[in-house]
Amino acid sequence: MPDHKIVFLPHETEIAVPDGETIIHAAMEAGVHVSASCGGEGVCGKCRVRVEEGTVEGGITEKLSQEDQDKGFRLACQAHAKSDLIIRIPVESAMDASALRRQMTPRKTSHIREMNFDELKEKGLFVPPVEKKFLQLPEPTLQDNLPDITRMISYLKAQHDEHRLDVALSSVIRKIPDVIREKDFEVTATLVRPVRDVGKTRLINVQPGDTTSRSYAIAMDIGTTTIYGQVIELISGDVLAEYGDFNGQISYGEDVISRIVYAEKPGGLQRLHEVVMGTINNVLDKIIKKSGIDHEDLSTITLAGNTTMTQLMLKINPRFIRRSPYVPAATLYPPTRAKDLGMAVGDHVSALVYPAVSSYVGGDIVAGVMGSGIYLTEKLTLYLDVGTNAEIVIGNQDWLACAACSAGPAFEGGGLKYGMRAEKGAIEDFSIDPLTYEPMLITIGNVRPKGICGSGLISMVATLFEMGIIDNLGKFSRDLDTERIRQADGIYEYVLAWKDETQIDRDVTLTEIDIENLIRAKGAIYSGCMTLLTEVGMSIQDIEHIILAGGFGSYVDLEKAMVIGLLPEMDPDKVTFIGNGSLMGARMSSLTNRIRKDVVEVTKKMTNFELSDTASYMDNYIAALFLPHTDINQFPKLKARLEARMKNKKMNRI
Amino acid sequence: MPDHKIVFLPHETEIAVPDGETIIHAAMEAGVHVSASCGGEGVCGKCRVRVEEGTVEGGITEKLSQEDQDKGFRLACQAHAKSDLIIRIPVESAMDASALRRQMTPRKTSHIREMNFDELKEKGLFVPPVEKKFLQLPEPTLQDNLPDITRMISYLKAQHDEHRLDVALSSVIRKIPDVIREKDFEVTATLVRPVRDVGKTRLINVQPGDTTSRSYAIAMDIGTTTIYGQVIELISGDVLAEYGDFNGQISYGEDVISRIVYAEKPGGLQRLHEVVMGTINNVLDKIIKKSGIDHEDLSTITLAGNTTMTQLMLKINPRFIRRSPYVPAATLYPPTRAKDLGMAVGDHVSALVYPAVSSYVGGDIVAGVMGSGIYLTEKLTLYLDVGTNAEIVIGNQDWLACAACSAGPAFEGGGLKYGMRAEKGAIEDFSIDPLTYEPMLITIGNVRPKGICGSGLISMVATLFEMGIIDNLGKFSRDLDTERIRQADGIYEYVLAWKDETQIDRDVTLTEIDIENLIRAKGAIYSGCMTLLTEVGMSIQDIEHIILAGGFGSYVDLEKAMVIGLLPEMDPDKVTFIGNGSLMGARMSSLTNRIRKDVVEVTKKMTNFELSDTASYMDNYIAALFLPHTDINQFPKLKARLEARMKNKKMNRI
Repeated sequence: MPDHKIVFLPHETEIAVPDGETIIHAAMEAGVHVSASCGGEGVCGKCRVRVEEGTVEGGITEKLSQEDQDKGFRLACQAHAKSDLIIRIPVESAMDASALRRQMTPRKTSHIREMNFDELKEKGLFVPPVEKKFLQLPEPTLQDNLPDITRMISYLKAQHDEHRLDVALSSVIRKIPDVIREKDFEVTATLVRPVRDVGKTRLINVQPGDTTSRSYAIAMDIGTTTIYGQVIELISGDVLAEYGDFNGQISYGEDVISRIVYAEKPGGLQRLHEVVMGTINNVLDKIIKKSGIDHEDLSTITLAGNTTMTQLMLKINPRFIRRSPYVPAATLYPPTRAKDLGMAVGDHVSALVYPAVSSYVGGDIVAGVMGSGIYLTEKLTLYLDVGTNAEIVIGNQDWLACAACSAGPAFEGGGLKYGMRAEKGAIEDFSIDPLTYEPMLITIGNVRPKGICGSGLISMVATLFEMGIIDNLGKFSRDLDTERIRQADGIYEYVLAWKDETQIDRDVTLTEIDIENLIRAKGAIYSGCMTLLTEVGMSIQDIEHIILAGGFGSYVDLEKAMVIGLLPEMDPDKVTFIGNGSLMGARMSSLTNRIRKDVVEVTKKMTNFELSDTASYMDNYIAALFLPHTDINQFPKLKARLEARMKNKKMNRI
Repeated sequence: MPDHKIVFLPHETEIAVPDGETIIHAAMEAGVHVSASCGGEGVCGKCRVRVEEGTVEGGITEKLSQEDQDKGFRLACQAHAKSDLIIRIPVESAMDASALRRQMTPRKTSHIREMNFDELKEKGLFVPPVEKKFLQLPEPTLQDNLPDITRMISYLKAQHDEHRLDVALSSVIRKIPDVIREKDFEVTATLVRPVRDVGKTRLINVQPGDTTSRSYAIAMDIGTTTIYGQVIELISGDVLAEYGDFNGQISYGEDVISRIVYAEKPGGLQRLHEVVMGTINNVLDKIIKKSGIDHEDLSTITLAGNTTMTQLMLKINPRFIRRSPYVPAATLYPPTRAKDLGMAVGDHVSALVYPAVSSYVGGDIVAGVMGSGIYLTEKLTLYLDVGTNAEIVIGNQDWLACAACSAGPAFEGGGLKYGMRAEKGAIEDFSIDPLTYEPMLITIGNVRPKGICGSGLISMVATLFEMGIIDNLGKFSRDLDTERIRQADGIYEYVLAWKDETQIDRDVTLTEIDIENLIRAKGAIYSGCMTLLTEVGMSIQDIEHIILAGGFGSYVDLEKAMVIGLLPEMDPDKVTFIGNGSLMGARMSSLTNRIRKDVVEVTKKMTNFELSDTASYMDNYIAALFLPHTDINQFPKLKARLEARMKNKKMNRI
């Protein structure tokens, strides 16, 4: 996809965008404010911009007069870049452009990075977990009437140097008499390698003819909300198909605690187990069909999930996970026949479940640690998976400390007056005109706003704070000249979109309570990091690299997250996003036994801290209940910008 | 039970019998002929004997006149020994007593011998297969909130030096959260030891409190006809309960071939599998209830059966077992969860199936070899399990050769004109008056005869042959003065009991065809032994010990079996009967891992000969189709007796 260069005037801000990008998205990325309150649907008509050079497609609507159209005006939310462009933003304010530029920082999301198959091979981490061997066996005679299995094993030994095999009853011994004779004693044996050298190779399947070119595994992430699965080609490492579906358990409670409560009811555990298996089987069915693979060629399913999801999937009573002292039944789970767990796959398929560290640092996090390779790096790394619960891992190849904290649902758009999930109509990006206080909103799907999602909330609070519209406690300035800031039921709020601009026939607002929720949520996470660092005798400045996992990490504006004090301040280039870390780790484990071997050591190495039982946590938490933090010196760049703004403000007043 | 000494006059034959033994049984044991044709029911009244000294109970019936009663006459089949006795047999013949004595040899059945628990320990063969460990664990706190399993394992390690445990999901991890808290963190762990040193101990169960004193296993013999089970106390080695039931598969065919034929029909394999599981579960239920053990305290079920029974039980297509070149699917079977096979026991119980050698030398024979300890002895031993199929093992600690041959059903009373199983009414013992040719019959249950069972057949043929009533081809003398030998439908036969003395309202006879069947059956077995010996370069005289297994071995008269040439001639004291060798081996394997470890090596050592493919077999077989054999020199004692009889006969004529 060819890139186009867009220069926004009068600020001369430049940005490269892919072909077809809307001008409003480009402006938001570039940190250029364009008033827009309909989320990008084109109905408010506020986002007029003038195309001075180059070609755009679309952006002409009844909101623009013929005269304006002739002059090159377009609606930024409807106009798509088709060449390099020079775009002028009508500046209705007299504000100094340099000040404006200082206030707005370009949007920086983290770049994606994951270990891939070639890298595994390069680094010497590739230890094949499954191998297929083709055999041409001699036909038995009265002089040579070895049992079918013995015949096969003796040739595996002679021709492929395979020793000490464990043989599966149902998928090998029961099948072999017919399979071995189907193609004149030509068969393919599927061998699953032991994780440890002392273990035995398992002969799990036998197929007629030569099937060595077909070898697949499945990786799954068993999330509280969503279950993802991928079919992986074991020879190339390629993902052949992927699918995600809502975890059917959602109807029994949105979070892990309510699932545990349900599981404690009579029949509850069985029910939740069946329901999650229902979703798992749906995902399996979809990806197997999509990839067109044969069930017989599938060998392993690697699953990662948090400790509660794992126990429910394995039908282990999770009752004590939610009660102090938070004891899980187990953190290592034996390999199990997938069919025995209720998965609709062949008898020969093993289910391999990612080990956990504790009740609240589960296999999903361990998978992320393995998949992202933190446990192999020298750099001190912060691994953060943010959701309703946030899990924090800090460490490197030498040590790893971890903790979980309850961030509450704010990052998922929960608990807000107009909060919503990151779905169509959610305001996900925001800027504000420093003089008029008019907003610029971009919604998911470019439709009229319905509410605020997590990334939108961060963007709003960061922007409002940096522009001085809210203070470091998250309170609105009481004396600004705008009707957008008002009191409703005694609570101050900012009107993001007026009733007639929304889909919900009500004003969509951001309240001080919403902001407080966000501050508590980010405070919990930041203080969790601080506490782990304190416990190991280090400070936040020692962190050299941040890895974000989870859906949250994909769209959060890093600079904004640093402004509110959710992430420690650092060069955004040192922040990596790995997407679904759980799924990635499961995929990596499917590809090489080295990860499965290492993981046991890694989980032993991961020191778990129960924050509620760690003395320094409460102090750190209280200190973090400010924007960005009580100790502004932890955020030196922000401090400099705020000081510059104050100076500028004073100058403007003078 | 006190023994009584009985002296039979006029022959002065002495025998010791248990209190209450009937006089007719005592006479049969002593080799003293008393005419009796009602099988011991007391209706023919022929078995009059006179009690000259001592006390008997019973034996007075209307068949005896008051005068006879007063003289001390009693019916031998109704009179029970209550003290030492002197009994006079009314000799209606003028025959020389010494000749009579020479003709009749005392009945010798083999003595019982099996390895027991103490012997295992003495011989250093005791390697505990299952151990229970009691643990008092500290209650978790926030500072010590290890997963439940990890807590238990760390204490198993610290207090019991247990390392590298494999943990079961369904029977340990799923249970532990509740079990560990049921008795304040006091638990008992059940550990199943690996057979090989490199293997891992499996933690298969966890129970609240201290259950270390309760540890049980089950041994089962899966026979074509009957399924036996035993509950074994693993601490003492005692058998707590035992039960046998007909294999439900009987309705699908009496022998393995007809079962295989049925299994090849659509749904047949599944059906036979379910049916045998039905019987197994019935036996399990009976013995578990009878012994009063708790399912939770049961750890393993060891099963032994022939190759076809094993494949049907494991649901492995047996199709190729009955087709040349007779290839079984497998001869080693992996340990399997008993429940997965369909057994109604706890999740934690393992099913351990005895390995086989070939399609017709199965796990039942291997179990007998292990249980009887042939594989540990220096003496060259012949192990013989006789049924419809006879399995032969010859060897010692250095080598073992084995083969199976089809003996036909004669030994089980099948294929005879009046053949029957060894059930009530079957003639099981027989002698004949050398002058009158009147028979002495003893039936199972001492009732009027219904037919002939295997041991009765052997007894009859041996007696008739040794008395010269049949020749070495099994043909009756055509010129004897008795109406008991006659032709019916052109076939010569001997009338064992007249119509009105039987239960079936027909004469019960022994025909020349019946005798031919027996000769073919014994010929197949004897020539099988000969062939194995020939192949390893030895002769029948090298055999130092015979072990008989199977129901057959318990009642066969050893001297008679040597007379017909079924067994090689040797001192009956060197013949050992081990009963159900299959069940015994299964029990031994339940008690010590040493047997389970050795068995794999033993099966490798057992060289299987396909007799149909062994050149010398047909020659050996044809040579064995005589009484006792073409080469009478292989039976020197019999030869001497026959020569003495001939001489005696000639003298009588003179």
